[in-house]
Amino acid sequence: MSGVLKDVAGLLKFIKGRKSFGRVIHKMQILSVGNGKCSVELKIEDEHVNTMGFLHTGLTSTLMDCISGFALMTKVPNTHVSTDMHISCLKPVLRGDTLLIDGWVQKSAKTLAFLEVEMRDKVSGEAVVRGIHTKYILDDLFLI
Amino acid sequence: MSGVLKDVAGLLKFIKGRKSFGRVIHKMQILSVGNGKCSVELKIEDEHVNTMGFLHTGLTSTLMDCISGFALMTKVPNTHVSTDMHISCLKPVLRGDTLLIDGWVQKSAKTLAFLEVEMRDKVSGEAVVRGIHTKYILDDLFLI
Amino acid sequence: MSGVLKDVAGLLKFIKGRKSFGRVIHKMQILSVGNGKCSVELKIEDEHVNTMGFLHTGLTSTLMDCISGFALMTKVPNTHVSTDMHISCLKPVLRGDTLLIDGWVQKSAKTLAFLEVEMRDKVSGEAVVRGIHTKYILDDLFLI
Amino acid sequence: MSGVLKDVAGLLKFIKGRKSFGRVIHKMQILSVGNGKCSVELKIEDEHVNTMGFLHTGLTSTLMDCISGFALMTKVPNTHVSTDMHISCLKPVLRGDTLLIDGWVQKSAKTLAFLEVEMRDKVSGEAVVRGIHTKYILDDLFLI
Repeated sequence: MSGVLKDVAGLLKFIKGRKSFGRVIHKMQILSVGNGKCSVELKIEDEHVNTMGFLHTGLTSTLMDCISGFALMTKVPNTHVSTDMHISCLKPVLRGDTLLIDGWVQKSAKTLAFLEVEMRDKVSGEAVVRGIHTKYILDDLFLI
Repeated sequence: MSGVLKDVAGLLKFIKGRKSFGRVIHKMQILSVGNGKCSVELKIEDEHVNTMGFLHTGLTSTLMDCISGFALMTKVPNTHVSTDMHISCLKPVLRGDTLLIDGWVQKSAKTLAFLEVEMRDKVSGEAVVRGIHTKYILDDLFLI
Repeated sequence: MSGVLKDVAGLLKFIKGRKSFGRVIHKMQILSVGNGKCSVELKIEDEHVNTMGFLHTGLTSTLMDCISGFALMTKVPNTHVSTDMHISCLKPVLRGDTLLIDGWVQKSAKTLAFLEVEMRDKVSGEAVVRGIHTKYILDDLFLI
Repeated sequence: MSGVLKDVAGLLKFIKGRKSFGRVIHKMQILSVGNGKCSVELKIEDEHVNTMGFLHTGLTSTLMDCISGFALMTKVPNTHVSTDMHISCLKPVLRGDTLLIDGWVQKSAKTLAFLEVEMRDKVSGEAVVRGIHTKYILDDLFLI
């Protein structure tokens, strides 16, 4: 099945100038998107951290939700909503670190899709966040 | 054990003017905070939703992380980082809805704390989001 | 909506003599079942623990799956399968401890149900396990 | 760091004749174990399913707990207990199916270890279960 999102140009157009909550990850650099996968890079700055200078778990979750959702949009033409999302934070990420983030569709069926995300430190290559995300696929087509 | 956060005035001071990621929930209204609990109210506006007009799962997670963290700050003087966070989204929340959000400490021991969050629709009283959040307690004292 | 399971007698009949995997919790004592809730009691014996004498996380999960499933069977006449299940283990449970286990339906809609489980130590009353369980509701009717 | 479990012979000795709860997976065939990984195969029989003939989520969880735990025992000499365990069930597994199950240590630090499990159908190769498991590492040495 083919989704509404085809390539990096399409994703750039989709996120451009948006005022919705997804704006908080606007500094990410899109590396690739297509075939049920999406990869981005993000340098952690002041606007991404908590008061201790660690990547905010809320932003970690936002990245996880968005990147896995973009991956699903390349496979499924319909809209979708989260039912369950789980993240494990293997290691604190600090201001100044750069993250490589891969999201992919593990399985998508008629009404449910199972997605995953892995975040690694760009320098060390170490996994720092792992996540599993289950979405419910609605009847409506995604308009982008 | 007593934490660094005592009351609504203390929490208002802690979050005031911050530029860190927690700024994204600055419109919340703090209802109460103390004794391992924190309750807030938030009206869902344009800045909180995704392109379909639903509360963004990234913001849901941010609320969950922050409100449960504030609850922990009333009990534990040390800093803490997330190890695992799980959310279940029982029902989509729409732009214009108002959420009542309760976070509480289910258990805190020397190195781990187990926190929970429940979000309800203010009008219907129905649960719309449930979450479980496990944090690791560091040696450093929280400076607020 | 009414489910296939009405009361303790019905649940006893459902689980009696079964050879399927659910047999591993056959020593539980059913305290109540109905209206989207199920409560049982279980004394932890040799057959329930791991090599260190702690309640085996596999059995914890089995209890969570079964008790929440029984709760759902009181509300929904259809069969159902797990999509996501999350447990947090707040405190190790030891051989000889007695658990009080409550499962309930937080929300059930047409195709998805959101269930929860809390396990407490019978003596201290302390919460020792918390769980969230999401099930997909199939078209087939449950035959019991 | 080296753990207490070295190879298939060691794991066979560890699980042999045990009366603890782990006995419920005694029919598994150990394919390999070492270097933070463990792989097993299991044919799903009557004793593994629920009343509908599907692999019981309780046994799915038990497999996940055990296989990831064996993987950790190859890296860490200490005992460990679960703090959080999450499973996503991508597709029902039926009586008669054969599962290939891989568990691995994603990261182990001084007090926490992050483990993962993937279960695939042996014939189709499709992923059917994914899991994330966080364990707390205790001070005591594992005696096997």
